[in-house]
Amino acid sequence: MPATHAHSSDDERPTAVIVSLFPRQALTDQRSSRRVMLSPRYGQAVREVEVSYRWCGAPDAPTVIVQGGISADRDVATTATGTPGWWSELVGEDCAIDLAACRVLSIDWLTPATLGDDVNTVSSEDQADALAALVETLGIGQVAAFVGSSYGAMVGLAFAARHPARIERLVLLAGAHRSHPLSTAQRSIQRQIVRLGLETGRADDALALARQLAMTTYRGGEEFSRRFGGEAEFRDGRFHFPVEDYLENAGRRFVERFDVQRFLSLSESIDLHDVAPEAVLAPTTLIGFPTDRLVPLADLCELQRRVRGPATLEVVDSPYGHDAFLKETGKLAPLLRQAIPCCCGV
Amino acid sequence: MPATHAHSSDDERPTAVIVSLFPRQALTDQRSSRRVMLSPRYGQAVREVEVSYRWCGAPDAPTVIVQGGISADRDVATTATGTPGWWSELVGEDCAIDLAACRVLSIDWLTPATLGDDVNTVSSEDQADALAALVETLGIGQVAAFVGSSYGAMVGLAFAARHPARIERLVLLAGAHRSHPLSTAQRSIQRQIVRLGLETGRADDALALARQLAMTTYRGGEEFSRRFGGEAEFRDGRFHFPVEDYLENAGRRFVERFDVQRFLSLSESIDLHDVAPEAVLAPTTLIGFPTDRLVPLADLCELQRRVRGPATLEVVDSPYGHDAFLKETGKLAPLLRQAIPCCCGV
Repeated sequence: MPATHAHSSDDERPTAVIVSLFPRQALTDQRSSRRVMLSPRYGQAVREVEVSYRWCGAPDAPTVIVQGGISADRDVATTATGTPGWWSELVGEDCAIDLAACRVLSIDWLTPATLGDDVNTVSSEDQADALAALVETLGIGQVAAFVGSSYGAMVGLAFAARHPARIERLVLLAGAHRSHPLSTAQRSIQRQIVRLGLETGRADDALALARQLAMTTYRGGEEFSRRFGGEAEFRDGRFHFPVEDYLENAGRRFVERFDVQRFLSLSESIDLHDVAPEAVLAPTTLIGFPTDRLVPLADLCELQRRVRGPATLEVVDSPYGHDAFLKETGKLAPLLRQAIPCCCGV
Repeated sequence: MPATHAHSSDDERPTAVIVSLFPRQALTDQRSSRRVMLSPRYGQAVREVEVSYRWCGAPDAPTVIVQGGISADRDVATTATGTPGWWSELVGEDCAIDLAACRVLSIDWLTPATLGDDVNTVSSEDQADALAALVETLGIGQVAAFVGSSYGAMVGLAFAARHPARIERLVLLAGAHRSHPLSTAQRSIQRQIVRLGLETGRADDALALARQLAMTTYRGGEEFSRRFGGEAEFRDGRFHFPVEDYLENAGRRFVERFDVQRFLSLSESIDLHDVAPEAVLAPTTLIGFPTDRLVPLADLCELQRRVRGPATLEVVDSPYGHDAFLKETGKLAPLLRQAIPCCCGV
């Protein structure tokens, strides 16, 4: 039975479907949107904002929020039509976050466009408040855990700091209470490239180039060395280095699925993020990667020291740098099972 | 007595002046150009090429070649008119490289523009060959040492590999036998930014932006963290982060003194550099910095293992990343004195 998705923002009724992809048990997969009240950090007043979400897994099981990086969407798990989600290997039936044992809630990131005409900037607090309002609207009460990676970790911290009664446990991967100034520098250059592109009618080319730069900050140096050590090739009037072809391809693919304004605002949101760790009371598990040059391990150490609740820092070796939260699923699975035992079926 | 400099390329006669800045002894300061024969790696034939050089220090003392990064020029030491050179703290009277005990030779980097109309690319070998030809033309015979930093280290390796009889000792700082693919990625993005600027009539803005990106690769993360941890300021319609103001300023200053084509060709030259360490016979001292993300220490370790002559690797702690070769003069001085004892007066 194919699932029908409520993609249209005009249709506000949640579409609850029984997904035949989950054989053992009848699981729900709600993919819809809700209007919630929100007072954006960089806006003047309270307004109604539409939040697109997905809520899937075992009905009546505890809900876990899972959020990823700025380019991740609400499809954390494989969709009803079989398209893999961005974290399918960790969220699904019999996975570390077992959809037969819990119910996963996630949203598409808010952008200034969704917040209203008077707002140019979206904050990690706005995302957290939207999630909290959604949790209330859906009648969830309290989430068993918030599992956030990269920007999702920042939003998780904001959620725990601002809505302590709505969260039982926090799990943060490759994200901290503030951006590292070197990473801010790299992102500010990406935004300047995009603005130069907008000013010269070359927005897509510029966005692709900004994405190339982002890629150099996501992956580990060792991985670059192993994969792209080959010789330059002369064609089309100049030398092309092996790593260039890889990056150009990655840039082009990003432009096909991402929008310039969305990129500018979410990138800026990362750099404006600033949550006092002392406001976090929920028990917290931090997962960091020594090769992550975007979110240095030192910042996770500081975060662990400063949160008020009990906090564990798990250090995972990986050649993949910041992207280890996407790539090291085999190493992350047992850590997630340990951090949120309520979410695994065992 | 003010020194006159032979800046013009029409004036081929070396201008030897006695510089009154050196009180203890009459030192020479020759700042001129010579035409030498060269067969560029990416050109078809031998041609005459003009090389702009400076040769200063004690007359009849052993000559040491000193070359820096792509944005460094032949003014290694303070000029006769009192303008500090890029390595004034290490090259001067009573400095580690003592101009009263040796004579320092350095050139302005060749570019495709200096090589001829048929050549679009300049190689580290071309620079090395030009230096070797200059050494012959000036009647130097053999240099006591080649001290190269960054791109200068690459050229030093090419010099040692191609002209073994002309060099006694090699000292390399923050440079290796090849570029790291991650660094190539970062530089290829810088060049793409500049090409986008050239195509849209915004070459200067693009060059400034490329320089900003380069700065993020030169300096250490710890330094960024210490200096730019402050809050964003809202002005001119958007948030500005403290690190942005610093980078924008650095970008603007670079555009004032650097040319787009020169940048493109020398940046590419770094990435095309590829010298077999096994061809290097001269005793070699390598100096590397653990915080250097552009030239990882691991690449200097590999270089040390692979050169044929005896090689020492000195590891210098510094928060300054790649730029430590410019900033850590206090720590570098004793290492240089030890590596090239003939150049210090003591």
